[in-house]
Amino acid sequence: MSRRSLHTPAPDAAALRARLDRAAAAAAKADTDALLIAPGSDLRYLLGQAGGSFERLTTLVVPADGVPALVVPKLEAPGYADVPTAELGIEVLTWVDGDDAYRLVADRLGKPGRVAVSDFTPALHVLALRAALGDAEQTLAGPVVRELRMRKDAAEIAALRAAGAAIDRVHARVGEWLRAGRTEAEVGGDITAAIVEEGHSRADFVIVGSGPNGASPHHDVSDRVIQRGDVVVVDIGGPLPDGYNSDSTRTYSVGEPRDADVAETYAVLQRAQQAAVDAVRPGVIAERIDAAAREVIEAAGFGEFFIHRTGHGIGLDVHEEPYIIAGNQLPLEPGMAFSVEPGIYQAGRWGARIEDIVVVTESGVEAFNTRPHELTVLDA
Amino acid sequence: MSRRSLHTPAPDAAALRARLDRAAAAAAKADTDALLIAPGSDLRYLLGQAGGSFERLTTLVVPADGVPALVVPKLEAPGYADVPTAELGIEVLTWVDGDDAYRLVADRLGKPGRVAVSDFTPALHVLALRAALGDAEQTLAGPVVRELRMRKDAAEIAALRAAGAAIDRVHARVGEWLRAGRTEAEVGGDITAAIVEEGHSRADFVIVGSGPNGASPHHDVSDRVIQRGDVVVVDIGGPLPDGYNSDSTRTYSVGEPRDADVAETYAVLQRAQQAAVDAVRPGVIAERIDAAAREVIEAAGFGEFFIHRTGHGIGLDVHEEPYIIAGNQLPLEPGMAFSVEPGIYQAGRWGARIEDIVVVTESGVEAFNTRPHELTVLDA
Repeated sequence: MSRRSLHTPAPDAAALRARLDRAAAAAAKADTDALLIAPGSDLRYLLGQAGGSFERLTTLVVPADGVPALVVPKLEAPGYADVPTAELGIEVLTWVDGDDAYRLVADRLGKPGRVAVSDFTPALHVLALRAALGDAEQTLAGPVVRELRMRKDAAEIAALRAAGAAIDRVHARVGEWLRAGRTEAEVGGDITAAIVEEGHSRADFVIVGSGPNGASPHHDVSDRVIQRGDVVVVDIGGPLPDGYNSDSTRTYSVGEPRDADVAETYAVLQRAQQAAVDAVRPGVIAERIDAAAREVIEAAGFGEFFIHRTGHGIGLDVHEEPYIIAGNQLPLEPGMAFSVEPGIYQAGRWGARIEDIVVVTESGVEAFNTRPHELTVLDA
Repeated sequence: MSRRSLHTPAPDAAALRARLDRAAAAAAKADTDALLIAPGSDLRYLLGQAGGSFERLTTLVVPADGVPALVVPKLEAPGYADVPTAELGIEVLTWVDGDDAYRLVADRLGKPGRVAVSDFTPALHVLALRAALGDAEQTLAGPVVRELRMRKDAAEIAALRAAGAAIDRVHARVGEWLRAGRTEAEVGGDITAAIVEEGHSRADFVIVGSGPNGASPHHDVSDRVIQRGDVVVVDIGGPLPDGYNSDSTRTYSVGEPRDADVAETYAVLQRAQQAAVDAVRPGVIAERIDAAAREVIEAAGFGEFFIHRTGHGIGLDVHEEPYIIAGNQLPLEPGMAFSVEPGIYQAGRWGARIEDIVVVTESGVEAFNTRPHELTVLDA
């Protein structure tokens, strides 16, 4: 017997009701008869509760036209007790071992032409739903739900602002732990504890990339002993109890940097990151933000060392729409929140990245991370 | 930029190689051209590393006949650096944003007739793989992989034994925290910390069901203040760093139980749990273990209060095959590990459950949890 905790603060019923109505409308607009939303952040967005995804089917059925239903194993139903299903107009359909839960969903939908499953529905349920729904076309709900989720409302913006402040408090303390003679893993352990102390539910990722490890953007931590003169990339974050995530990178130097090219290169990176943030305002297309950073770095001759996209949306997921990447023609709108995180990576020697989460405002941009952008030189 | 830590101990290459070979053979036996294994516990079983499942495709291609390939985004490839791919005979195929990763998989497979995706592959990838693979039948890899995973080898049995001992150490300390006047959540917080202190990577679930809450099998914790005389179900567990899980339930009383029927009812439960454990040996079919517990409880007139199956397999997942449930005709074999956890639930008043993880041995059974089965009466 086991179940991950479902206890978390939730948005009020009116906000959830509005989201459900928008989801149904978006389904209709996409010629989709129903969305089937599995446990996870899509479910949390619509119900205020992420639920847990196991071998038994739980799904929120959101018809384009009709009454939504939460199909849930009877044993797991108490975990949804905090969801105001009555106020939301959601029917709760419980099932027990021996029932055919997929048939329950199919019977509710009649003879649909197209049914969308949420992007992270396990294959186990995807294939069984496909079989139960016979001739219906099966598509992804992601493109429908992301249209809603990537436009944050005021409560969500406040939640991301709080997450940003929480991770900034951790960055403010990095000098307590990051010094020569300690391993990345030791420093990472201290940071992990501080992420929780500063109000997160947990640390979701802790990257301490020292010296050459900083040149690998997805390095996490290792047993490498930090040396005097190392440049160190610290990229950290996690969810607050309300589910909204932080994610911020700052780059430190343990004593003065060993490599002579750090100061000049870092100054380019800082200008690039600032140029990208400054480019954010309603109506600008997403790829322009990527280009704004990339142009500065390329003009300085470092283009080949900036080896990833400039950013990703953030909210209930650490990575979500909108992606700040070449080719994304999405016009930015107020309420869109994403990272701006260019980096420059000198393989085998050092790397640097600066990352803020920002939101598009009516008139421009607000950054949720406000720690200084300069290379922070710590006592060795 | 973010990624969950992938750093974990791993089985040796010879053990992994044997598992890969068995997986290929099992695919062939199931008339399946290839298994596509997404990050998660199936991947951890085959590579020693669970990876992380994100919006970019990572999949281990295990052909029934041919060379396995790990398809992975270039940025995430360093996370698999500890996997002995060369020794395992696995080709690593990296891709970058802009490449069609699904096409990469399809090209590798040629014109397969049937391709199985692992059970927890996200729908995002399931649907894209289906489209890329054209006419191939898409099935689930779970039934193939579970045939391997449910038969634990000696190293896995040792890992589960260690997990059992770790959670037993937590149960041994429950009296430090569980007393009248504290909330379930406060007690749960202390238990969560102890689960980590005793060697787990994290607490995966912490159920503290006091008084009436104990009658809801999937309750976790609440702000209910524990009262003198409460019977309290404590069901806890989590993974050790090697990925193998603990899961054990004991039932406590805070002072002498308030309800007069506790002693007699609990004695029935204890006999039922023991009868089920005693029934475990090679050749017995899984549902007989469920029946062994249920018969004792029904004979005492409490059948209607035992509202769930008797157990579930455990290993790299907390819930996996074999399920100990009516209808499961699987003959037990040495190396199969599962929970034996009957419960009796008196709605609105109290509940009790006793749960041990056991493994089928050559001659019978070994229990990994060895704390006393009696109702433990604590000082109030």
